Amino acid sequence: MYGIKSFEIKKIGAKSVEKIPDLVAWEEPLEIRLGFGEMENRQQKSISVTMRTPTGHDFELALGFLFTEGIIAKLDDILSIRYCVDAGRQAQENIVRVELKPSIEVDLSKVERNFYATSSCGVCGKASIESIQQHCKILSSDDFKVPASYIQSLLNILKEKQVFFKHTGGLHAALIINPQPTHQTALKGSKEKIADYASSPLGAGGRCREDIGRHNALDKVIGAAFQANLLPLKNNILVMSSRASFEIIQKAAAAQIPIVACVGAPSSLAIETAQDFGVTLIGFLRNDGFNVYAHEERIISSCE
Amino acid sequence: MYGIKSFEIKKIGAKSVEKIPDLVAWEEPLEIRLGFGEMENRQQKSISVTMRTPTGHDFELALGFLFTEGIIAKLDDILSIRYCVDAGRQAQENIVRVELKPSIEVDLSKVERNFYATSSCGVCGKASIESIQQHCKILSSDDFKVPASYIQSLLNILKEKQVFFKHTGGLHAALIINPQPTHQTALKGSKEKIADYASSPLGAGGRCREDIGRHNALDKVIGAAFQANLLPLKNNILVMSSRASFEIIQKAAAAQIPIVACVGAPSSLAIETAQDFGVTLIGFLRNDGFNVYAHEERIISSCE
Repeated sequence: MYGIKSFEIKKIGAKSVEKIPDLVAWEEPLEIRLGFGEMENRQQKSISVTMRTPTGHDFELALGFLFTEGIIAKLDDILSIRYCVDAGRQAQENIVRVELKPSIEVDLSKVERNFYATSSCGVCGKASIESIQQHCKILSSDDFKVPASYIQSLLNILKEKQVFFKHTGGLHAALIINPQPTHQTALKGSKEKIADYASSPLGAGGRCREDIGRHNALDKVIGAAFQANLLPLKNNILVMSSRASFEIIQKAAAAQIPIVACVGAPSSLAIETAQDFGVTLIGFLRNDGFNVYAHEERIISSCE
Repeated sequence: MYGIKSFEIKKIGAKSVEKIPDLVAWEEPLEIRLGFGEMENRQQKSISVTMRTPTGHDFELALGFLFTEGIIAKLDDILSIRYCVDAGRQAQENIVRVELKPSIEVDLSKVERNFYATSSCGVCGKASIESIQQHCKILSSDDFKVPASYIQSLLNILKEKQVFFKHTGGLHAALIINPQPTHQTALKGSKEKIADYASSPLGAGGRCREDIGRHNALDKVIGAAFQANLLPLKNNILVMSSRASFEIIQKAAAAQIPIVACVGAPSSLAIETAQDFGVTLIGFLRNDGFNVYAHEERIISSCE
């Protein structure tokens, strides 16, 4: 499975018309099913259907979604994860089944609420923020600080890692990276503050996942960290090729990521949620600057 | 209610750091509730919660969503539409209640399915396409044809109409427009084919709606046409500032819009759905050209 499909298209230009093959972002539904309860009384629940790009990271997507929605808590809760081979042949690779250990209790009302929350927040008005704070932990205080120049350098790293976007122009990317002392320029004057991050498997180039949906790209990369037992992602930075919506901050906070830097604009609710949950929110990330919308205390600027 | 909120931000540039006020796209949840059944046995169902931008078009959004999801069919089915004043004060403007006439029957299983479909398609794998075709009509054949030069001119019209995007850089726009004989350049050599569209209220500048979610922008503008009793939107063109996903084509087909032109890239499923439903799909719309991904027969190119 790859993230791209080829189509024959008609390209209409100022002075020419031609039929050419074109590469397009692959979009297809993925259903996430949860198996839980005692072995003699096993229950199954369809949790979500999301339109995703098959990039070979469906298990990560399922785990990341279940974790960021508060349905599963740790890798040790999982009995198995597999494609539903008992489904029709064509659907086989579009249904992922996550089996929980019999000892793990699932609050069905929470599943309903989270299922309900797939496309948004689950409740209405200001009450939503309060209810989300229940399953979306406020970040614990830290002394994680990063130079502005390092943040700016992340744009090029993201671009290098975007395999599919180059071909289709239609995929979002989520990168999780841990600052490295090897970034000499970036770390100038603040070496002691970003000391022992080199030991993290998410250092150096970080980890990047792509998808037609920005929330899916983020679920995939958080799911990858979940599978590698790396959560919570303290001292890491999330870089998104997209805008920052409420759900991006919600998912980042669930994984305890302290800094979120987006290439696009943030929404009002993304800013308010970042302020409330203690997440540093950066928008309009460019090679020569960016805007900080919340919790600027983690950014070290040499211009001040 | 307006689409924009102001925040104080920290702007970090190559050689300066400043604190400035910044305008941001407003994001807030909207819950859509449906009232139906006999007056003595009235039922209520929460249909959807979507994260939308309050732009003063919540009723249009609710109607457009219910129509494109196949839950309501025509304006005459509606008894009333209002904000839920019995909700808590803060939530008042975030809950819209649509009352159906007692004679209108609602298939609850369909409501469930559509509710399920909010963030995607509701079912899995290839079966999804078939199930959607049930409530999403294949376009009836037409002889609607438009010159390529006219399609190209729509980009500037869209940009003129985008009120909020200029300020925030974070909102999508959906424009529905009916070609006008007044577009002399555009209609050169094909006047007879686009004759009496001038009579349509969606001619001239068309109608544009904005939202942080592209599907919401589209629901708003289709809801506006629904409220004005203008559906189906035959002989109209939909212009989207966004990429073309599956759901955009699904909603356009529900409103019987024959041509969809997007500034961004289409997904594989958007192309396949457009092919199946008879929708002309255009991507990468620019002032000097575009790509046609499905049903090119509606585009007249002078270069051929």
